[in-house]
This record gives sequence, structure tokens and C-alpha cells, in this order.
Amino acid sequence: MAKNQIENLTVVKVGGGVLEDVSSLAGFLDRFVALPGLKILVHGGGRVATKLSEQLNIKSKMVEGRRVTDADTIDIVTMVYGGLINKKTVAALQSRGCNAGGYTGADMNLIEAVKRPVKEIDYGFVGDVTHVNHEVLSILLKSGITPVIAPLTHDGKGQLLNTNADTIASEISGAMSDLYDVSLVFCFEKPGVLSNPSDDNSVIPELTAASYQSFKEQGIIHSGMIPKIDNSFDALQKGVKQVIITSASTLDINSGTRISL
Amino acid sequence: MAKNQIENLTVVKVGGGVLEDVSSLAGFLDRFVALPGLKILVHGGGRVATKLSEQLNIKSKMVEGRRVTDADTIDIVTMVYGGLINKKTVAALQSRGCNAGGYTGADMNLIEAVKRPVKEIDYGFVGDVTHVNHEVLSILLKSGITPVIAPLTHDGKGQLLNTNADTIASEISGAMSDLYDVSLVFCFEKPGVLSNPSDDNSVIPELTAASYQSFKEQGIIHSGMIPKIDNSFDALQKGVKQVIITSASTLDINSGTRISL
Repeated sequence: MAKNQIENLTVVKVGGGVLEDVSSLAGFLDRFVALPGLKILVHGGGRVATKLSEQLNIKSKMVEGRRVTDADTIDIVTMVYGGLINKKTVAALQSRGCNAGGYTGADMNLIEAVKRPVKEIDYGFVGDVTHVNHEVLSILLKSGITPVIAPLTHDGKGQLLNTNADTIASEISGAMSDLYDVSLVFCFEKPGVLSNPSDDNSVIPELTAASYQSFKEQGIIHSGMIPKIDNSFDALQKGVKQVIITSASTLDINSGTRISL
Repeated sequence: MAKNQIENLTVVKVGGGVLEDVSSLAGFLDRFVALPGLKILVHGGGRVATKLSEQLNIKSKMVEGRRVTDADTIDIVTMVYGGLINKKTVAALQSRGCNAGGYTGADMNLIEAVKRPVKEIDYGFVGDVTHVNHEVLSILLKSGITPVIAPLTHDGKGQLLNTNADTIASEISGAMSDLYDVSLVFCFEKPGVLSNPSDDNSVIPELTAASYQSFKEQGIIHSGMIPKIDNSFDALQKGVKQVIITSASTLDINSGTRISL
């Protein structure tokens, strides 16, 4: 397929607290449905998975601060990401007149991955994306479907794998840039990337590779924001037109932090 | 779409014990993949859901021997049917070179239902099918996808509903008969409908409406087999070409019990 009849596609990642709270989720989905043009929703759900693990007395194994996906945990996240959160979101979008279809990376071979090689740490059933099947996603979009993607991939050998939702959003955006003008929007509880985490008015309006480097060196941008912003730059390098980090409570792509190469 | 270029479609329902046992499931999936032509798989999973409910100390509410789907239970079955069983089956089919896609009735609005009206018994979040979106299923089949359907529907108002997997298989088969020559195959642990439940060699090779009535009156066919056979006749009345009840361990549509009008 050629990019000659170029259409806009918005890939929205939502995660964290937004998914847990019924009223914030409803408002977010209203705003998502109101976005013009073709769109794809990618969701997380780690906190809901942690809660279910606790209820089942399955201890989350952590190695050097990172969660390990053992055999019990991949079942938990398959139930929570692929089942509970994905299907509730799809049903909620359907009730808003949005013809959503919920998928993991195994469905229709949408996202292939390899189990992360064991080096210092064995992360268990964690997948590093190797290929996004953008042709099938395009068929779905052309059929009027809005894909809702759970953060699970597969290795083609029968194993489901746990993959970070920000990474999935970035990889899908990059792959779809062959066919569409893609905007990638990361939504979360904060209004954007903050220069002062305790001040919601300290949104950094634009981040370039150079200013990002400088903010990192000063320790202003750190911990959880770093992989999100790294994923943003990855997406831009793969041809994504724009990346915005903004609040789920507005889903306003004209506010928040814009990432540029 | 007209039925002029008629193609064969096999709808296979698998449930019960087959899904629980890793080796019987693997063998079943091998045989499913080997079936020629277009196909759709519908799965159950009630026993796995019951096990998870027990682990979470959620009591299965029964009224007059029928399970009630309360708010906790619809979450459980969404996790187990829509997540765990559906996605593991899809990943396992992908590893066999079958491009499976796993869906509930909410996905792409595939199966609409109404919450069963409360009469003597309130079954809770149980759905009676009102419409199967056969056009979307047809698009998927034409795209080389093998749909794997979990026994969940939705009401279009945001609520997921629990629907019997045999009924889903029957409704899908009936709806797809507008477009395809459909064979519906119910697979389970037994080699067919038995005239003596303790003798696997007592398979009734053919059941007509008349002989079914007679077997029921004699008490030879009873309890769990009745809704399965009723679903078979429903499917035939909706234009399904043949219905076979056979063993998952052979998936041989030339053995087992053939249902005829």
C-alpha cells in the first residue's frame, strides 16, 4: 500500500490511574470517541493486575526494581489486560457509537515479539517487539473498526508475552507511519512533562532531543518519564508526525508536552 | 452479499474437559487446524471460571440448579473466557500456522444480545443473542483470519453479558448460512450422543426431530444434552447444512451423531 492517499491516524495510549477510576475512564472515553478521524487505543493496566495478583496471593517478583513476568503472572496479565480491561473498554466504546475491536498482539498476528534474552536479569515472559502487522490494522481501520490494543504480544511459538504499553503504542505508531500521517498521544494523570513534579503548572511545552538531554542531566526528567520519552523519540525516528504527552482529563493535543526531533 | 459463490464454513464448538487438559487441547487444536476450508472456533470455559471464582472466594450463586452471573462473576468470565482461554488458544493456533483472531461478542459488535428478562429467576448478566454481525465475520474470513469466539456478548449499552457457548455456536452458524454452506460441529469428551451414558459404543448415529422426541420421552436423552440438541435443531432451521456432535479426540465429522430435521 502506498502513502499517496494520506490519511490522519491518532494512536492514543492511556494507562495508570485513568483505567482504574470508573468516572475518569468514562470521561476519557467520551473524549477519545470525539477525536476526529481514524484512531487506535492502546491501554495498560499494571495496577489492576497487581491487585488481582495480591487477591490470588501471587507475589509480584521484582529484580532490581523491575517486575518479573513468571508463569503465574503472564496468566494474570492475560486475564486482566486481554480480558477484563480490554473487553470492558470495548463494550464502553460500543455504547458510545464507536465500533471498537479489542486485540492482543497474538490476535491476527498483530504484534510479533521475542522473549527478552536473559542477561543479568531474567525478566521472564516479557516480549521485545519484532514486527507490527500494519496491513491487518489497516484492513480493520478501513472496515470502520477502532482497534483497542492490550499490552500483550506473542512469539509465534504459542507463548504470550508481556510488553510495555508505551512501547506497543510507539511501535504501532511507527509501523503505521508507512500508511498514515500518525499522531501519537500519551495520556496520563499529569498535564504533560513537568519541570517540577509537584507543580502541575510547570508543563514543559516542547522537548527536543537536545533539551531532553539537558533536562535529564539536570535530574529534572527522571525515572518513569524516561522510557516514555525514549519511546516518543523512537516513534519520531520511525516517521511518526507528532508525539504529545498530555492529560487524559482533557485529551487536548494542543496542550501538554510536544516531542520533536 | 449473495450466496452464489458458495463456500464451505465449519463452525466448531469445543468446551468442557478438552480446554482444561493441556495435552488434549493440543491434540484438538492440531485436528482443528487440519480441517479443510474456512472455519470458526467457539469455546467455553465454565470449569476454569469456577476454579478462579473459588480461588478468589467468590461463591457461584445457583438458583434452581442454574448459575447466576452477578457483577463479580461477569468480571471473572470476562477474564477467563475473553482473556485467558481465548488468548492462549489464539497463540497456540498461531504457532500451528493458523492466523487466529480472538473476539468476544462486543468486539466489532460481533454479537449483540439483551440481558435476559427477569421472570421467576434473575440470571443476572446473561445475554440472549439478538443479532450476529455476519458481514464482519465474513470480512475476517476473507482476510485469512480464523475467528476464535469467547462466549460473551454485549448489550450495546456498555454491558458485557455471559452467553452459553453452544448457543453462540448455533447462532453464528445460523447467521453465516446466509453466506456459506455451514457445518456445525459440537465437540466434547464423548464420541457422540449416547443411548447408554456409561457405554461409549452406544452412539446414536442419527437424530431426527421425531427420534429425538422419542428418546427424550424414554428418558434416554436428558439433562445437559437437551440444550445442545435443541441448539442443533435451531441451527438447522436457520439454514445450517449439517450438525454433528462428536468427540474432540477425533474431530471426525463422519463419526458421532448427525442431527437432521
